[in-house]
Amino acid sequence: MIIRDVIVTPIAFRDPPLLNAAGLHEPLALRTVVQLVLDDGVIGLGEGRGGRAVTERLERVRPHVIGRSVLDLNGIERAVDDALGGDAGPLSRNDRRTVFAPLEVAALDAQGRILSVPVVDLLGGAVREEVPFAAYLFYKWEGHPGADGTVVADEWGAALDPEGIVAQAHRMIDLHGFRSIKLKAGVLPAQEEAEAIRALRAAFPEHPLRIDPNGAWSHETSLRMAEEIGDLLEYLEDPVLGLDGMSAVHAATGAPLATNMCVVDFEHIAEAVEKRSVQIILGDHHYWGGLRHTQELGAICSTFGIGMSMHSNSHLGISLAAMTHLAAATPAVTHACDTHYPWNREDDIVVPGALEFRDGALAVPRGPGLGVELDEDALARQHQVLLDSGRSERDDATYLRRFEPDFDPRLPRF
Amino acid sequence: MIIRDVIVTPIAFRDPPLLNAAGLHEPLALRTVVQLVLDDGVIGLGEGRGGRAVTERLERVRPHVIGRSVLDLNGIERAVDDALGGDAGPLSRNDRRTVFAPLEVAALDAQGRILSVPVVDLLGGAVREEVPFAAYLFYKWEGHPGADGTVVADEWGAALDPEGIVAQAHRMIDLHGFRSIKLKAGVLPAQEEAEAIRALRAAFPEHPLRIDPNGAWSHETSLRMAEEIGDLLEYLEDPVLGLDGMSAVHAATGAPLATNMCVVDFEHIAEAVEKRSVQIILGDHHYWGGLRHTQELGAICSTFGIGMSMHSNSHLGISLAAMTHLAAATPAVTHACDTHYPWNREDDIVVPGALEFRDGALAVPRGPGLGVELDEDALARQHQVLLDSGRSERDDATYLRRFEPDFDPRLPRF
Repeated sequence: MIIRDVIVTPIAFRDPPLLNAAGLHEPLALRTVVQLVLDDGVIGLGEGRGGRAVTERLERVRPHVIGRSVLDLNGIERAVDDALGGDAGPLSRNDRRTVFAPLEVAALDAQGRILSVPVVDLLGGAVREEVPFAAYLFYKWEGHPGADGTVVADEWGAALDPEGIVAQAHRMIDLHGFRSIKLKAGVLPAQEEAEAIRALRAAFPEHPLRIDPNGAWSHETSLRMAEEIGDLLEYLEDPVLGLDGMSAVHAATGAPLATNMCVVDFEHIAEAVEKRSVQIILGDHHYWGGLRHTQELGAICSTFGIGMSMHSNSHLGISLAAMTHLAAATPAVTHACDTHYPWNREDDIVVPGALEFRDGALAVPRGPGLGVELDEDALARQHQVLLDSGRSERDDATYLRRFEPDFDPRLPRF
Repeated sequence: MIIRDVIVTPIAFRDPPLLNAAGLHEPLALRTVVQLVLDDGVIGLGEGRGGRAVTERLERVRPHVIGRSVLDLNGIERAVDDALGGDAGPLSRNDRRTVFAPLEVAALDAQGRILSVPVVDLLGGAVREEVPFAAYLFYKWEGHPGADGTVVADEWGAALDPEGIVAQAHRMIDLHGFRSIKLKAGVLPAQEEAEAIRALRAAFPEHPLRIDPNGAWSHETSLRMAEEIGDLLEYLEDPVLGLDGMSAVHAATGAPLATNMCVVDFEHIAEAVEKRSVQIILGDHHYWGGLRHTQELGAICSTFGIGMSMHSNSHLGISLAAMTHLAAATPAVTHACDTHYPWNREDDIVVPGALEFRDGALAVPRGPGLGVELDEDALARQHQVLLDSGRSERDDATYLRRFEPDFDPRLPRF
């Protein structure tokens, strides 16, 4: 039960040219894989955000985690906090939680392996046997430009207008069966994105729809969009920035607003409740501090009549498995979860087979722990991809400016 | 891991003549012991409220719990809820949680025994190695009147004035070392109870003091008491009834108010936060729905800047062990916990030794599960006490009226 080593492996994997308010996804997305090695040889798997800062912080906390019981999640959390300087240090609680999260997931995976039970049972047991996810649609280029400027289209092709978005939705739903649809927005003038929502509604009359401009709209644009397409949406995600902005949009329109931008820490919740800024919170165990703290977020959401979904960054299978166990054990989850996985799964570093969408949902893996196994060769391969790339941070804005020098990521844009 | 039987044993144990706003403690307090018997022979222990209704409800849910995995706490909770009719049924969520709680504690005890880990580790690990409790003082008679009306003084003697209360405090602190003091009030005219607080402050200048009239004071009396003794108190518990009443007292006085009466379910929290009715919530896993839900309460308290302590009814060692594991794993607990245990421990049904106060605190039992073992003979003895008594419910008001026919438990009294 004692942690004898923490192996931290930064990786990179291919990412299509997806557009968002911050720019264009770079050709490589970055993640960090954590392996907790216990004294009896059991290894627990965790996956966290990528980038040099996260890797360095994990290496910094490593000696403080070694020697602890893998059951002592509170102790591991405290050790991480202390090693990173606590509230007096340079890192926000959010940043510290981002370091703790993959360790907590790996600890729960290890616990499950030792006890021969799935992580969902360590979180209280399944309240649902399958977890629905949403088709996550993006405006996108047909392919990444090569060094010589030529573009080789990827298998998804371009999506820069309503027809392209609908075609992308068809492909994604044909492949995975999703029963909810999310459109990443904040890319084109709002009117064009409204057209895309109308086209999706026409093509998929029964699918709940959501749109997420990542705070790219002004207050006025948000009101207009709520008026024009509000009735077509299950919720509007982060139309504007900030608790006050969200509160004003909700007060003016009554539209249910979701967020993964203005409520990203427990310390934001009280004000959000007081101001009625958000009606749905997108949990994300990577920055809420692991699976158990995200369950606490769920309890708060239930208590205050706030809905819950899950936020996603570009990620691979360990995180997808963790999200699935978490959502399965959290009654508060009221909406299909977001996931980037269909865009990135080909470079996954877990053994294929455990995570196959059926009708847009994942069955909770029933193997011990997270129920996924590390593919050592794939891990080595994606680590080498990172090393060869020389990348240390993802920067969508700089990448887009390479091709569109006038691109300005400041918000609101529309 | 599969539950093969649920053994429900109602018991009674001696209780001194303690006074509160509702009347006089009867000579016997009632509890219910639950044993979850697993297929591999492991037995998990839980303790819940007493009374025929609780016993009957536990028997009613019994067939729905048998056959489930002891890890599936969410499934057991759902089964209890469904068996008792859910939200559409005659029982409140609170009543249903009261049935679930001893089952959840027993399930966690069984999990810990199977895995050879203490319950605190199943709750995330200890954030404190010992849990401080408060000396719980009562106005009391010198002994229960016998059938012939004569009174045989118990070892505690009478406490009906400031001197009696201070003497009781000395005895209890000499025995157990408590470093905080709680006075159960709402018994005598408020002015006399204020005198008792002043006498305690003089005798114990360093001990945090709290007073709990259980809503027996009017708004005006509460204001006067806050004015007179507010500075001597760490908090004032339930001076008045209801969220609005508490809100008004806090707004008028600024005194920190605690409650175990107006916030006793998750559905009360949002209004309490909005109205700033309470500054400290006394958790109690018996009606908040077990240890994990009480941890969720803790997360909510932390999130909204609300302090946390623990409420206690008359109870025995299984519940005390459960409270200790819970408080040890819950960072939100900011105040010493309440416990009636010193008043009732002689009739305990667990093997002595695991629960000894040192300097007013309990070390977290480190044995597997809750770390206490059932004393089968003691359980049989206390069950027989219940059978011989013919009691089915506790009724402090009726008991006091036997001796003081004019006693009227309606609140506020002062």
